Amino acid sequence: MMARSGYCLWFTGLPSAGKTTIARAVTPLLRARGWNVEVLDGDEVRQGISADLGFDRAGREAHARRVAFVAKVLARNGAIPIVALISPYASSRAHARKEVGRFVEIYVTTPLAVCEQRDVKGLYKKAREGQIHEMTGIDDPYEVPESPEIRVDTVGRTPEESAQFIVSELERLGWPLDP
Amino acid sequence: MMARSGYCLWFTGLPSAGKTTIARAVTPLLRARGWNVEVLDGDEVRQGISADLGFDRAGREAHARRVAFVAKVLARNGAIPIVALISPYASSRAHARKEVGRFVEIYVTTPLAVCEQRDVKGLYKKAREGQIHEMTGIDDPYEVPESPEIRVDTVGRTPEESAQFIVSELERLGWPLDP
Repeated sequence: MMARSGYCLWFTGLPSAGKTTIARAVTPLLRARGWNVEVLDGDEVRQGISADLGFDRAGREAHARRVAFVAKVLARNGAIPIVALISPYASSRAHARKEVGRFVEIYVTTPLAVCEQRDVKGLYKKAREGQIHEMTGIDDPYEVPESPEIRVDTVGRTPEESAQFIVSELERLGWPLDP
Repeated sequence: MMARSGYCLWFTGLPSAGKTTIARAVTPLLRARGWNVEVLDGDEVRQGISADLGFDRAGREAHARRVAFVAKVLARNGAIPIVALISPYASSRAHARKEVGRFVEIYVTTPLAVCEQRDVKGLYKKAREGQIHEMTGIDDPYEVPESPEIRVDTVGRTPEESAQFIVSELERLGWPLDP
């Protein structure tokens, strides 16, 4: 009597790459198919389960582990968790893949120069001016995914086009578009 | 196109009161109706999202807040999270109620003497011998719920009888038994 299992879309990429924007554009496409979809955005989820953590390596890793747990329980209860998290460390992403099981890693490939020009939250500017530290891409590493299921290039594409591309890739890869 | 919202069953009570046992007995009854059900047991969930926390007041409160977040996202994605957590502080339970929204507080009323006799994990013995501290009911407080939706008395009842009682109470209170 259990509903079909969901699966996790895990967006990784630099700050301002477009992870949350695309996640929010994918959401209505999957909801229209009948899925329950939960966007687990870095900032929002930090309030809920990781208010104690910082942005050093240990803090980022611990946060990614907690997010993976939440994504796991959502997916096995028939929903699609969409995680939008810089998740700069390959080891964290590998852990999440193992923990969640049904896992689609989506690398938002937007180059650093473009991210820095967008600078949605003004963090690159602050990092360049030395006002903040541990900024991924500036003074903190981003380990590029070696074999993500999907790569999405946001340059010259609207968020809606990127979202459509992801849905077509999910279909091509055999992930169910209907619950 | 969203599925019906679920709701949270939040079991509170002393250690060895029977919270997890009854939660696990309720689970198949709700699954048989077609619900996705996730038991968020204190020990298991601590591994997933609260490995850093202790059992002092601050640790218990922070853990309860994180569990409430997980329960919230499960319930709003159509599942029934069943939380089995001592949750000794009224303020934590009030926070969870507000955070989750669709919330059924179930007080497992088993008296301390009975819990101590059961002593499922041997913790009462260790606490009496002074080997462990911060044991709810011994040297840590348990604030009795004043107005839980359901009170369940486990003495002289099997877990299955308690589970059936809870389901009938849910129905009486107007919570949907079918998704």
